Amino acid sequence: MNVGIVGYGNLGKAVRGLLEKENKNLVKIFTRRDPKSFGDDIFESLDNLLEYKDKIDVLFLTLGSATDIPELAPKIIENFSTIDAYDNHAHIPEYFEKMNDIASKNQKVSFISTGWDPGLFSLNRLMGEAVLRDGYTNTFWGKGVSQGHSDAVRRIKGVKKAVQYTIPKKEIIENIKDADKSYKSFEGHDRLCYVVCDKEDEERIKSEIVNMEDYFKPYHTDVKFISNEEFEKNHRAMPHGGHVIRTGTTLNGNKHLYKFTLELGSNPEFTGSIMVMALNAVARFLEDENYGAHTNLDTPPYYYLGISHKEAIEKYL
Amino acid sequence: MNVGIVGYGNLGKAVRGLLEKENKNLVKIFTRRDPKSFGDDIFESLDNLLEYKDKIDVLFLTLGSATDIPELAPKIIENFSTIDAYDNHAHIPEYFEKMNDIASKNQKVSFISTGWDPGLFSLNRLMGEAVLRDGYTNTFWGKGVSQGHSDAVRRIKGVKKAVQYTIPKKEIIENIKDADKSYKSFEGHDRLCYVVCDKEDEERIKSEIVNMEDYFKPYHTDVKFISNEEFEKNHRAMPHGGHVIRTGTTLNGNKHLYKFTLELGSNPEFTGSIMVMALNAVARFLEDENYGAHTNLDTPPYYYLGISHKEAIEKYL
Repeated sequence: MNVGIVGYGNLGKAVRGLLEKENKNLVKIFTRRDPKSFGDDIFESLDNLLEYKDKIDVLFLTLGSATDIPELAPKIIENFSTIDAYDNHAHIPEYFEKMNDIASKNQKVSFISTGWDPGLFSLNRLMGEAVLRDGYTNTFWGKGVSQGHSDAVRRIKGVKKAVQYTIPKKEIIENIKDADKSYKSFEGHDRLCYVVCDKEDEERIKSEIVNMEDYFKPYHTDVKFISNEEFEKNHRAMPHGGHVIRTGTTLNGNKHLYKFTLELGSNPEFTGSIMVMALNAVARFLEDENYGAHTNLDTPPYYYLGISHKEAIEKYL
Repeated sequence: MNVGIVGYGNLGKAVRGLLEKENKNLVKIFTRRDPKSFGDDIFESLDNLLEYKDKIDVLFLTLGSATDIPELAPKIIENFSTIDAYDNHAHIPEYFEKMNDIASKNQKVSFISTGWDPGLFSLNRLMGEAVLRDGYTNTFWGKGVSQGHSDAVRRIKGVKKAVQYTIPKKEIIENIKDADKSYKSFEGHDRLCYVVCDKEDEERIKSEIVNMEDYFKPYHTDVKFISNEEFEKNHRAMPHGGHVIRTGTTLNGNKHLYKFTLELGSNPEFTGSIMVMALNAVARFLEDENYGAHTNLDTPPYYYLGISHKEAIEKYL
């Protein structure tokens, strides 16, 4: 399989590194910036993408979900199979329909919305409910950086640098088996912001953050002001993680807990790993002529390893 | 779908209760005992199984893995689709081949070796390795009752009642991210036996247990002697559980933890739940004319819910 990457942010860099680590044949990285500015032959202008129609089988779309993917992916899928981590949950169903339609018509495979949420967390929400029909599902995120909330804080006047951590409530997770409920997000999480700004802006900025509707308002939010030096030293990493927990009863009031946990040293590198894993599945779907859009919810798990069902049974069952 | 159950031990009882709870059409429970002895019309002699060839689509085989399943399942699959929890890990590959062969020839579906281990734990071992290519997998079982080890203790002369709990080492699990190794089972687990016997046999029995090769010898084993009353009160439940943990690095030494945990109030009821979940998948494989043997490793996850991929995306992705 010859592969390419479209986009070169944190996720694109991670996918590149992982593909190189696994000796995959990475042909080009397509960018909307000037490819010459990277000083590396692997970069190519996105304008020239179609020239690679016969040279690249699968493209990793490491683009933003807000506007880039919905705009570009439906065009790209006409000529290339794709893998993306589109994470705009509310719009995934319509995005799926669109990609499925165009991919099917053009005999391509589009593996959409993979990663850990959507992706592995979705898979575990499904499995948890399938096994324990009578119960409650809770998803907890963090401790980790929320890019959307960090952006919201950075838009406040006077904020020089900011990062927002989502922190799940430990005591709720520890007692989840007896809770018999699905918590609302603000019940299960706190928010913690680190902000770099001038001393005289602190009080106003704190008030603007904790009172910001939707992003912060129903949550308990702590705001800490730190120096630029401390910010650079302690808040540049991108850890994340969380839990999907299904609790339920079977017969005779017997309770069970199904829990899936991730602790990620680097959010983009782990998401990139899952995208690279999807490459094996795309290869298999293409081989099966099973064109159209696919997700982690419809993929036979052993497809991710590029081995036969028989080998998977011998190794893992 | 019309379903039946073959066998009526703890697992068979659980499957029956779960099928009734979900209003599935349970036609008969087949037994090698005298069906009349149950005083319930639902029981039928296993000798009459073939009379139900056209009245039952899928049979749950809740039989022992030691000899019953390998002996009976290859005959049953000629006429009925089946779901089993065959757990003899070393023999699963050959069992799969055999069932796949006969089921394919007879246009039947055989869903084999489902449950939590093999089953959900197998799935997570596979997924953990697919996502984190560079790392270590560890499986921990317990705290829970090991039927095989309890049986081994009960075979010792003078033992009136006995139960063996497998206990994973908490400190190893807590520090797994920094361990960078796959532990051997005896390194990661302790064994704890509760035994009812006469006072004068205690010393000999304890010595026989802790020195029993394979079952106990390399493990740290505690033996506690208790009264019959205490045994009946505290050691009749069948809790179990455990963890599958994959730790690995991506780039730049970034470490990640992938952890799947189960805490089960009742081992047979949870295993039964997974078998009942497989019924939806079997229905779908039959509909697709995708005959032969299937496992949790080749089943598209949304098949377990009996809904379409589109509905699964809307609900879980």
